[in-house]
Amino acid sequence: MIKNTIEAWHKIVEARDAAGLDNILADNVVFHSPVVHTPQTGKPITTLYLTAALHVLNNDTFKYLREVISGDNAVLEFQTVIDGISINGVDMISWDKDGKIIDFKVMIRPLKAINLVHKMMGEMLQKIK
Amino acid sequence: MIKNTIEAWHKIVEARDAAGLDNILADNVVFHSPVVHTPQTGKPITTLYLTAALHVLNNDTFKYLREVISGDNAVLEFQTVIDGISINGVDMISWDKDGKIIDFKVMIRPLKAINLVHKMMGEMLQKIK
Repeated sequence: MIKNTIEAWHKIVEARDAAGLDNILADNVVFHSPVVHTPQTGKPITTLYLTAALHVLNNDTFKYLREVISGDNAVLEFQTVIDGISINGVDMISWDKDGKIIDFKVMIRPLKAINLVHKMMGEMLQKIK
Repeated sequence: MIKNTIEAWHKIVEARDAAGLDNILADNVVFHSPVVHTPQTGKPITTLYLTAALHVLNNDTFKYLREVISGDNAVLEFQTVIDGISINGVDMISWDKDGKIIDFKVMIRPLKAINLVHKMMGEMLQKIK
């Protein structure tokens, strides 16, 4: 079940197509941004943030590095380059007993990258809202 | 072996005592800071950074949350509060066949936290160098 969810996530990322999110997110999913402390609760807002992230981060240089999965948790490390700046981050994903994602947290390094993503996510959220 | 290394790391963190690092770090260990892109290579510089991090992050509010371990990789999620600012981060640890740590990467969220840690780590590194 877990494997299916992560596979579905990878397909969404590869296709850069947010439509598949509806199937893998739980209704009460919580999203934790790399920039802001306050969690965002619910499927609509989480879908909005993940859709924006797919647009911002997922260019031709985007690739996953380490994948650490155990119990109900996966940590997927990614790397991408935007405007010549290397962006290294993790998707931290937890799921419920039905394999639906209930928690999605993103962290990014280094500082230059988080500042760039902050700026680009803000612009993208305005565009797709 | 892996379990022993992670247990030893937890003991170092609990005791806030960097002396134990010598036993668990490989000579060619690489440290990746949450702030700077360029990796730091070798035991002396990694010991310096981890010692500074123990001093900066590890107050009475410090605790580990999720622990995701698989294969040769562990991701330890932590949380702490400094000056009223919530700091959430991960230690991403890889080890060699002898159970020595060869790669130690730290990511921190949110942006406010990374800026605070950046400032405090700079001051601490000056102090302990």
